[in-house]
Amino acid sequence: MSPLYYVGLQPELSTLDTAIDSDGILSVVTDGYDVLSVPITNLHFRSRVSRISQSVSDPAIVPHISPPIYPEVNFAPNSTYAQHVLGICAKWIELDSTDPRIAGVSAQILKHELSYASFCGLSYVIVPGPTRRNNVALYAESLNAALAAVPYINIIVHLAMAETGVEDPSGPDVPAPVDAMSIWDIWNSVRTICDYSSRLSVGLQLPPKLPPQTVVSRWFAEPITVLFISANIFLSNPKGYPVLSKAHQFLLFKYMKIKPYTILQDVREATQIRTSSKLPSKQDESAYLIYIRHLHTILPSPTAVEKFGRGYQDYLQNPLQPLRDNLESGTYEVFEKDPVKYAQYEKAVFGALSERGPNPNGQPVIVAVVGAGRGPLIACALRASERANVPIFAYAVEKNPNAYTYLLQRKELQWQSNVEIVFTDMRSWSPTHKVDIMVSELLGSFGDNELSPECLDGVQRVLKSNGIMIPQSYSSHFIPAMSPKIFSSIKSQNKEDIMNTPYVVMLQAVDLLAMEIKQAWEFRHPCPYLRANSQWPASHRINDLSQNDDSTATVKRDTPFDIGNEHNYRHVTARFSIESRGVMHGFVGYFESVLYGDVELSTRPDTINKKSKDMVSWFPIWFPISTPLYVPDDAEIEISIWRKTDNRKVWYEWSVETFVLVPVPGPGSDNRDSIASASASPARAISSPTKRVRLGCSKLHNPGGKYSSMLL
Amino acid sequence: MSPLYYVGLQPELSTLDTAIDSDGILSVVTDGYDVLSVPITNLHFRSRVSRISQSVSDPAIVPHISPPIYPEVNFAPNSTYAQHVLGICAKWIELDSTDPRIAGVSAQILKHELSYASFCGLSYVIVPGPTRRNNVALYAESLNAALAAVPYINIIVHLAMAETGVEDPSGPDVPAPVDAMSIWDIWNSVRTICDYSSRLSVGLQLPPKLPPQTVVSRWFAEPITVLFISANIFLSNPKGYPVLSKAHQFLLFKYMKIKPYTILQDVREATQIRTSSKLPSKQDESAYLIYIRHLHTILPSPTAVEKFGRGYQDYLQNPLQPLRDNLESGTYEVFEKDPVKYAQYEKAVFGALSERGPNPNGQPVIVAVVGAGRGPLIACALRASERANVPIFAYAVEKNPNAYTYLLQRKELQWQSNVEIVFTDMRSWSPTHKVDIMVSELLGSFGDNELSPECLDGVQRVLKSNGIMIPQSYSSHFIPAMSPKIFSSIKSQNKEDIMNTPYVVMLQAVDLLAMEIKQAWEFRHPCPYLRANSQWPASHRINDLSQNDDSTATVKRDTPFDIGNEHNYRHVTARFSIESRGVMHGFVGYFESVLYGDVELSTRPDTINKKSKDMVSWFPIWFPISTPLYVPDDAEIEISIWRKTDNRKVWYEWSVETFVLVPVPGPGSDNRDSIASASASPARAISSPTKRVRLGCSKLHNPGGKYSSMLL
Repeated sequence: MSPLYYVGLQPELSTLDTAIDSDGILSVVTDGYDVLSVPITNLHFRSRVSRISQSVSDPAIVPHISPPIYPEVNFAPNSTYAQHVLGICAKWIELDSTDPRIAGVSAQILKHELSYASFCGLSYVIVPGPTRRNNVALYAESLNAALAAVPYINIIVHLAMAETGVEDPSGPDVPAPVDAMSIWDIWNSVRTICDYSSRLSVGLQLPPKLPPQTVVSRWFAEPITVLFISANIFLSNPKGYPVLSKAHQFLLFKYMKIKPYTILQDVREATQIRTSSKLPSKQDESAYLIYIRHLHTILPSPTAVEKFGRGYQDYLQNPLQPLRDNLESGTYEVFEKDPVKYAQYEKAVFGALSERGPNPNGQPVIVAVVGAGRGPLIACALRASERANVPIFAYAVEKNPNAYTYLLQRKELQWQSNVEIVFTDMRSWSPTHKVDIMVSELLGSFGDNELSPECLDGVQRVLKSNGIMIPQSYSSHFIPAMSPKIFSSIKSQNKEDIMNTPYVVMLQAVDLLAMEIKQAWEFRHPCPYLRANSQWPASHRINDLSQNDDSTATVKRDTPFDIGNEHNYRHVTARFSIESRGVMHGFVGYFESVLYGDVELSTRPDTINKKSKDMVSWFPIWFPISTPLYVPDDAEIEISIWRKTDNRKVWYEWSVETFVLVPVPGPGSDNRDSIASASASPARAISSPTKRVRLGCSKLHNPGGKYSSMLL
Repeated sequence: MSPLYYVGLQPELSTLDTAIDSDGILSVVTDGYDVLSVPITNLHFRSRVSRISQSVSDPAIVPHISPPIYPEVNFAPNSTYAQHVLGICAKWIELDSTDPRIAGVSAQILKHELSYASFCGLSYVIVPGPTRRNNVALYAESLNAALAAVPYINIIVHLAMAETGVEDPSGPDVPAPVDAMSIWDIWNSVRTICDYSSRLSVGLQLPPKLPPQTVVSRWFAEPITVLFISANIFLSNPKGYPVLSKAHQFLLFKYMKIKPYTILQDVREATQIRTSSKLPSKQDESAYLIYIRHLHTILPSPTAVEKFGRGYQDYLQNPLQPLRDNLESGTYEVFEKDPVKYAQYEKAVFGALSERGPNPNGQPVIVAVVGAGRGPLIACALRASERANVPIFAYAVEKNPNAYTYLLQRKELQWQSNVEIVFTDMRSWSPTHKVDIMVSELLGSFGDNELSPECLDGVQRVLKSNGIMIPQSYSSHFIPAMSPKIFSSIKSQNKEDIMNTPYVVMLQAVDLLAMEIKQAWEFRHPCPYLRANSQWPASHRINDLSQNDDSTATVKRDTPFDIGNEHNYRHVTARFSIESRGVMHGFVGYFESVLYGDVELSTRPDTINKKSKDMVSWFPIWFPISTPLYVPDDAEIEISIWRKTDNRKVWYEWSVETFVLVPVPGPGSDNRDSIASASASPARAISSPTKRVRLGCSKLHNPGGKYSSMLL
């Protein structure tokens, strides 16, 4: 059964009608709608307000408006039906009027209407959006005051997606775009001034012509509670039934994911036009509702990742620390279900074995799975061995005692003699024979964030000099992003450590701000630096199994700390170009990995389909910033990130700087990097078409690993 | 005795010299200097670092540098002299190098040197500033890591005031200015990334030619611990003694107020040139020190306000709430000392009495001082009465029981029968006769912030219909400002309420960002709205003393609440033009008041000298914002502020929006105020030379008076 999707009706009632009774509500609900949106007050109230406003002569004085009373309101409290009603605030108020009397009267009316709606048990009131660009603070302050005065109600700000005249430039007959982001911009100011109130959301009006894709994506990241669709924007199909254009369908498919209320407007009017009838039948009118319900049933099926992550959208999870903590069997089991990851691993081991070939002396090739868990990679390796026709002997090295027990059982039942189960931290492992192919799955959402580099460095000493490690390399990637939802969930907890911790999160209500994801850094295995710098004492030397079958050797856990871990320090500062303005709440991290040869894994949205389509094991990682940074059009965001380490732990630090590129009319711009000093030559004025102007920067997050780190 | 002023010497020691011993430090101190700045390490250390750096072949690897050892350091620990030494970090390090090896080695050296300096008991280490504009995050991260690694040391970042080529355009022979704020801009990023660490400050190098005044003022608001002055920038006076130019003297006079260490450099070299001697005498060398000491003795005397506020610079005080709290005698006494305020009040009462003249029937004019305190305004009124030759009868109305007692004594000893002392809240006062002239001193730093409007509204009913109130009006004024010092003192307390409370503060380390202070709003007395709307029940009517001497009457406390307090609500959104970029931490509030006719009070720095020079009773008020807002050159700051009220309290709310004006190359700019809606006409493209681009906004501060309010 598909999840519930709420569709509502905004009836075209004359606001002079008498109050809507529960029968009225009932009839709409029995007509198949889930909710009804109703103006809270009617023309009686409006007339009274007008009379009072006109009676006050002093232009400096805001007249006092007392709350609406019967018959000025459209409905009475009814707990049975309250859940089916969204209140609509009077459309004639103007909270951001430049006339203080109009603004003052409007603010009173808003409070009264919210208060009455709350009394009647409603949860939501739809409030008209700002009417101008330049009085946003006053508008926001009125909402804020109303929210404070009425504690349980939620405000839905009714907004257009973009100003009229802003249409998708890829569509036909498009005039020059005005300012596609101006409405979003105003909304962003309103919610910022209201301090990201969780009781403030958006009711978005679908326009007849859609705005550019950047605008559609932007709104998708916002808290949309309602989608308003006028029946007038429907087309007629050949049979005369109302349908939406392809473009509108795609937009609805996207927005339906966040399950807003969809509210149909102008249904009677549009039906009259469509059917050329003054009194269309209920059946005729229901065509729009039926169509929306139909669209919901033909929603494109969710991707593998969406299915896997259902219920986890935008939910912050602490990254696993498998080195510090022993995982539960259930956790292993979830990851073992990935349809793609283990296929790729099997392909990689197959490739390595095929290229290497069987040992000429008939000895099996030594494969070690370090961090074997419940053994999925052992199974991969055995299958690959069989397919490649290269016999192997496999070590399964595991430090989790419970997983070790499971592995012992599995060896008994399945694998028998050509697998040896070793209970140890791989960094302390002393095998009797050196290893030809070492396979691991220690990667986290940001690649190295579960300490894969340090673990593999610690076991590299048991690899033969011509040995192969799978994965051969992995790299971390990142991009600045906007997510009011994640920011407010972090903010609401109001703890310094949460602002300084990277989280694993299945992203949904997120808008990537830059054009391009960039690579942060890379790790390669075997580690070239360790290769060049390890000096093994003679007593620790291990013989290769292929050379001397009888010898035994011990290896002490003397790496990586003997030569420090500085070689796993990383730092990068990357510059991202931003075309459309937005507000940055953090950045998203991904990884790519070369398992072997051309067998790769990727979680980057732009390469996952090419490299490892439908792989679900990793959600992205989210690095929050404590204060949102606004960037205008034609901006640059520079993210600096460090992977730091001491002998006990590894952690990330990050900071962000923002710039805007401003056109420079004449010469005299100054983009030099170096600072002119007393000894430098006189300053030169370099002519350039734009100037890079510094805008803001964040503090350094998580300094010294104070708030979050991975223990070695 | 003038307060201590520290002058230091940076000796031109060859860094290959052997370590400085305590005798060396002693000799400098006995030469009249207070401190000595000394490089922590010498060329031995530098040679070792070079050798190690060159020995590592892998370009990806940062070599490990062990701490400096004897004889690589220039001094040994000596607790007696540690307080006289400022350490200088190696000048050849480059923390922001784009070569990761140089940056990595530099970061290690910084930590080692800080650590050694701390071990030796030093409190300050001077660190070279960034060398480039575009690697600021890396530079700041290194400082931050070093501060974290060495817990008690303070870092002084050595910076030029501006890049070479940036000179005061009002001076002679000036090339085109480069970018006067670029060095400040970098510093601002460094300290922002370091999260306003209290252990990070600036050591400013005085340039031979001074930068524009905006730059001088900007640095004055920063935490300057050291002023470096090279002896080479001194001129010779006719007698051959070294002196500074007038411009430099003025700058020093300004900066000496914040008492930095002044450190002289290149003294021997400059003396050699001046005296044409290879081995100048100690006496010749001391001329620079003597001159700086001399300058300090001829510092222009502090203004009346500076004297009054000594010790309170940039110190946050909660505004008085004299309505809620009863003041101490000492508090009254401090304010009574104002040399200007009471002279202005006396002038105002004199003006009112003179204009009014004596009553024709010989009855005295009724004067009421409401909120009489210890009686200074009664004294003013009596003096004014005598000078104007208009007999008065004065009421002294006071609700503070202790002040009342004091007033009774004063009546007994000084005033006798023509003064009556009344113990009541003025809002409940029921005099036997109505009042001709009502005098009050209820103003706070922002004018109305001690509830003068509400108190005076409450007593206005006892004023005759042709009565006069002194003050006749007052207005609030404001301007956005930068103050890292105030911001970090608020931030360090990390409490939500402190970020949402206006403070009274004697401003010093503050830079006003806008060109112009703007008026927020005004209050007039008697209140015209109350005049027009009060309906007095017959039983409450009071007779004028002049009309009927025998009648008595009672007045109940039925204002202001009977008709609400909405008429004292105020709101303004003001737009401020910003020429030079900066970071806004809050805004400063002042007031002006018309006492009577042309007798005024002002705390606005641009009008105080004209209206009430040397008045000291009020420091400005500071409205903080919780997150600093950066603005680039050619920006606009829009501040919205509300004075809100219910029947129990009055409070302010405020929010800030920022914009930048960007030149628009062609047509297509879009500065329309209104939002195009479906019904509006098609969007027009209005040609305009600049575009106003929204940059950021603050949240709404103190919503609902949650954090700070004045109780009625």
